Amino acid sequence: MKINENYTLLQENYLFSEIARKVKSFSEKYPDREVLKMGIGDVTLPLAPAVIEAMRSAVEEMGKAETFRGYGPEQGYMFLRERICNYYRSFGVYVDADEIFVSDGAKSDLGNILDLFDKDNTVLIPDPVYPVYADTNKMAGRKIIYIAATQSNGFLPMPSEKTDADIIYLCSPNNPTGAAYSTEQLKEWVRYARERDAVILYDAAYESFVEEKGIARSIYLVEGAKECAIEFCSFSKTAGFTGLRCGYTVVPFALKRKGVSLRNMWLRRQTTKFNGVSYIVQRGAEAAFSDEGLKQIAKNLLVYRKNAKIICEALRKLGIWYTGGENSPYVWLKCPNFSDSFLFFDELLEKTGVVGTPGGGFGQNGEGFFRLTAFADRKTVQKAMEKFAKVFS
Amino acid sequence: MKINENYTLLQENYLFSEIARKVKSFSEKYPDREVLKMGIGDVTLPLAPAVIEAMRSAVEEMGKAETFRGYGPEQGYMFLRERICNYYRSFGVYVDADEIFVSDGAKSDLGNILDLFDKDNTVLIPDPVYPVYADTNKMAGRKIIYIAATQSNGFLPMPSEKTDADIIYLCSPNNPTGAAYSTEQLKEWVRYARERDAVILYDAAYESFVEEKGIARSIYLVEGAKECAIEFCSFSKTAGFTGLRCGYTVVPFALKRKGVSLRNMWLRRQTTKFNGVSYIVQRGAEAAFSDEGLKQIAKNLLVYRKNAKIICEALRKLGIWYTGGENSPYVWLKCPNFSDSFLFFDELLEKTGVVGTPGGGFGQNGEGFFRLTAFADRKTVQKAMEKFAKVFS
Repeated sequence: MKINENYTLLQENYLFSEIARKVKSFSEKYPDREVLKMGIGDVTLPLAPAVIEAMRSAVEEMGKAETFRGYGPEQGYMFLRERICNYYRSFGVYVDADEIFVSDGAKSDLGNILDLFDKDNTVLIPDPVYPVYADTNKMAGRKIIYIAATQSNGFLPMPSEKTDADIIYLCSPNNPTGAAYSTEQLKEWVRYARERDAVILYDAAYESFVEEKGIARSIYLVEGAKECAIEFCSFSKTAGFTGLRCGYTVVPFALKRKGVSLRNMWLRRQTTKFNGVSYIVQRGAEAAFSDEGLKQIAKNLLVYRKNAKIICEALRKLGIWYTGGENSPYVWLKCPNFSDSFLFFDELLEKTGVVGTPGGGFGQNGEGFFRLTAFADRKTVQKAMEKFAKVFS
Repeated sequence: MKINENYTLLQENYLFSEIARKVKSFSEKYPDREVLKMGIGDVTLPLAPAVIEAMRSAVEEMGKAETFRGYGPEQGYMFLRERICNYYRSFGVYVDADEIFVSDGAKSDLGNILDLFDKDNTVLIPDPVYPVYADTNKMAGRKIIYIAATQSNGFLPMPSEKTDADIIYLCSPNNPTGAAYSTEQLKEWVRYARERDAVILYDAAYESFVEEKGIARSIYLVEGAKECAIEFCSFSKTAGFTGLRCGYTVVPFALKRKGVSLRNMWLRRQTTKFNGVSYIVQRGAEAAFSDEGLKQIAKNLLVYRKNAKIICEALRKLGIWYTGGENSPYVWLKCPNFSDSFLFFDELLEKTGVVGTPGGGFGQNGEGFFRLTAFADRKTVQKAMEKFAKVFS
């Protein structure tokens, strides 16, 4: 039996598992010291009342013979897919309910979508970036080209005619840098992809943080994108579903290669290797995108946006360079006095108890930078930035 | 961009999606006729009270800041993994909580586990069998050898020294035939796998239906199995979780190939391409395996077992050959007067409204046979078998 040798090329630990381990050992070393978690992008506010109410009802339904539900459609219940269509429509994007696939999260889909592509494709990945894009392609043994996201391009790299690629990852608003593409900039990427018959895998998990006009909430705002892009979205950050698990992926009917519909391939993949999302969770997601739910989740988003402003304000006062924090829950800063972001991570944790994420964990261009997230509760954010200021002023 | 061409070798529709389509068109044609569903293996009894109560509490927890939970461990919460260990212990199997991976269902894991294996492996699959095994390997382009499960070997094929394989699928109690291996028979398979350094993928999704002494509920009852087998299990049939989505996979520490731990590979895969199961569902699963929950789910299993007996009794009276229905929720019968199981499906549906699953959908040796499931409610089962008897006596 031959194992998939590509796995041996990966670092043994997934970045965030490694950070969790370091935090655990800090807590064991200093049982009395407070840990201020601004590392992993995990929400902290409770679920919206409309979501809770919907899940309460769904739980009761599952306890009665008349209303019990077994296997649901692998693609997701229509009641939820129609709500997602409405949500898209609210910012001017029209997608068909049959182009939407409900899943247990964008992370799963971003990994699993690669089933549809041959091993022999060249993958273009911005650096720094969410580690899942590179790791999942390394697991499959694909050739990866990195495109540099740097301070000089505002961490928003644009396509280069000299580079050829078949599969292109874009994440906007970006994880980890918080930088977000305008619709105008995405037009360039769509043109580039169409010219090469490439497919863009567009991670829009943070779209709900976009406030500024002209910044894209979906790649489908660009004409022609449906013929070259798959979009990944999630209730995790939008509605606080990190512990509930629900996302959605759009594979347009118009997306075909050599006459084969990628939407039909994905349907085949999902009906064969997936069995749908928990009914209870789908009811919760439906409620999150109801009129009432949308108002409630907007309130939560406001709290996180304010947190981002507090972080940015503190960094500005300290004269530390940063980007993000607008249209994004992530603030991306230049490590003060450190060129090694992992050493900065250790120093920051040791001196302040603040947990962030070392930029080097997101790629070599992330080295020297550091990610803070706005998802902690207000007190944690304030305390963290005070301690931060004391040590790095 | 090159698509994964292997997809074009698959039939476009997954078997059960195809059956759902046929049933839908029957209902449109005859809006007044009753459909008696005994096709897909979907449970019908509501969830146990202990499960409902646990999920109620979990929903409330998610609505309060003090008790809200975001991302959980990808491998599953320890509270659930420990319960699963206890469950295993109740029938004499010892597995470590860190060898258990909680997932959204056995179907997902059975597909995703193939990530760990090189494309260049020979896969041994019994025929007939759950279509997912073959389809997922076809998607990856692996060479498949089928081993015949026939009336003459009681639909329980044993290894042949003449056949070499790297990955071996076993499903016991079997889907679709209902046949179940004894621990003694599994010893032969473990020996065969160990001699060839092969890995057995053991689907134990129906283990909770085993009543007979000597019939295996886990492959780990066989000495040495931990060095050659991965076991897939599910709350779907055991506790009626088909619509909730929760399963678990055991990858033992002892399972290594060329010094590489498959358990560590699977951990790397799951932390990279998966983000854990909904907290609410995990609390439900924990409650299903509590003392109270186990008593309640045992009652439900009894209902399904009685249904199986009703089906078997009806077939016996009609003189129709069948297997299964003991240690299994599936009854596997020889199509009366038909050699084509798909034509029999159409005839049965048209004449009686009964939906079963054509054996041919599970492989060529399934042709001429037909699967009925015991998961429908009692009235449906009784009515179905009465109608069946009228038409085929």
